[in-house]
Amino acid sequence: MKIQLKENEEIEELGYNNWKIIQNKKEFCFGMDSIVLSDFAKDIATGSIVLDLGTGTGIIGILLCGKSKLKKIIGIEIQEQVANMAMRSIQINNLQHKFTVMNEDINNLNKVFDNQSIDAIVTNPPYKKENSGRLNENPAKLISRHECKCNLEGIVKQSSYLLKDHGTLYMVHRPERLADILVCLRNYKIEPKSIRFVHSREESEAKLVLVKAVKNAKPFLKVDKPLRVYDKENNYTTELLEIYGSNKRGEVEESKID
Amino acid sequence: MKIQLKENEEIEELGYNNWKIIQNKKEFCFGMDSIVLSDFAKDIATGSIVLDLGTGTGIIGILLCGKSKLKKIIGIEIQEQVANMAMRSIQINNLQHKFTVMNEDINNLNKVFDNQSIDAIVTNPPYKKENSGRLNENPAKLISRHECKCNLEGIVKQSSYLLKDHGTLYMVHRPERLADILVCLRNYKIEPKSIRFVHSREESEAKLVLVKAVKNAKPFLKVDKPLRVYDKENNYTTELLEIYGSNKRGEVEESKID
Repeated sequence: MKIQLKENEEIEELGYNNWKIIQNKKEFCFGMDSIVLSDFAKDIATGSIVLDLGTGTGIIGILLCGKSKLKKIIGIEIQEQVANMAMRSIQINNLQHKFTVMNEDINNLNKVFDNQSIDAIVTNPPYKKENSGRLNENPAKLISRHECKCNLEGIVKQSSYLLKDHGTLYMVHRPERLADILVCLRNYKIEPKSIRFVHSREESEAKLVLVKAVKNAKPFLKVDKPLRVYDKENNYTTELLEIYGSNKRGEVEESKID
Repeated sequence: MKIQLKENEEIEELGYNNWKIIQNKKEFCFGMDSIVLSDFAKDIATGSIVLDLGTGTGIIGILLCGKSKLKKIIGIEIQEQVANMAMRSIQINNLQHKFTVMNEDINNLNKVFDNQSIDAIVTNPPYKKENSGRLNENPAKLISRHECKCNLEGIVKQSSYLLKDHGTLYMVHRPERLADILVCLRNYKIEPKSIRFVHSREESEAKLVLVKAVKNAKPFLKVDKPLRVYDKENNYTTELLEIYGSNKRGEVEESKID
């Protein structure tokens, strides 16, 4: 199959299963956050029907097709151009039987899917509140980084509607929003069960937080060992390299973490 | 001054300022949690009036008299025998001018102190929900470990009443209760601003969580670098030894952490 690349797009090797992904270096790249989320979510139950809310390049869904035993994953992406790019990446890797992309607004999903029809949800949502931070980015970056088209509460509300009883939500976010996240999950009866923080270095504060939450579960939260990006010699840690795949040594993408 | 010891009580060197503390090895000892909390809270503003909710042996207040620049700290302890033991430890160290203990129920504090009269609050509260875990402990341990005489919401509610605008609450707790803690703090308008987790080892999950929250502050949470207890060679880490005071090498108390 001949895959067309558009302006500013290029194909990158994922360093995993010989899979590739299309990125638009000017507008839309994946970051370390998506990579660590797909690793964190790889325990998704065998045979699961999964949604990826805000699928972007499709990186999370592609990696989960290999790393987990899910049956089917549907990526939801509001930006048509970005959704189209993800679809082409799926075709490159011949994953159409498992991974499809829908150009849809996350806030409309309760009209698209049945209540309690989904086993698991993964999401790398916009991190910043609508009126915070620099807003002079290009529109594609703005939508992916700021809560202008969807916000935390919208995502959690839809997840609560869509997930089956004891279905699981996996999220990556900024630690600065942790209280917002835990409060919102509780409000919508998706109980936080496991959290892991990502730190650049041993002596640095957390840059990212990974949250696993289960609908209608009992409260009892586990905070995992931290995931560190660099060791004392400033090399990537063994765990990070394993998450990325060993042939990515020395070229780990950090567009969002630093 | 001659200090009387009661049955099962003994005096322990704190390894700090030549200060000492009375403990009852059968009923009431301090743990690592109190030591790391007093270190975490040492940035209490100069001249602060401070409450220690559930003061126990008095360890947190005694250490804060040395480590912080507080003006006065009042320990609140519901158990008369335990309050009496703390008072005698204060006398041993001649800290009566700074640290007093009140034998009072935390839930009554709004009748004892004025609204918005306190600069900072420190607390190492009972960790376990009232009807969880083993309840066959002796009464003194039971009250200090289980939410039978006071619970998280009671402590946060009283703190919200007592703290001045932008007054600070410092708490140590179990990570399994983190969602409860953040939800409760938000409900009472004490915003979580800084969190630090304590891990026994690099590869182990968090055992304790330290939370700093500020009344009426804006949301933005920082998750500090983790505090590790042991290094790879199974020795205490440099940071932990510094927190304890260097002459405690090799005899760090871990009654609660493990």
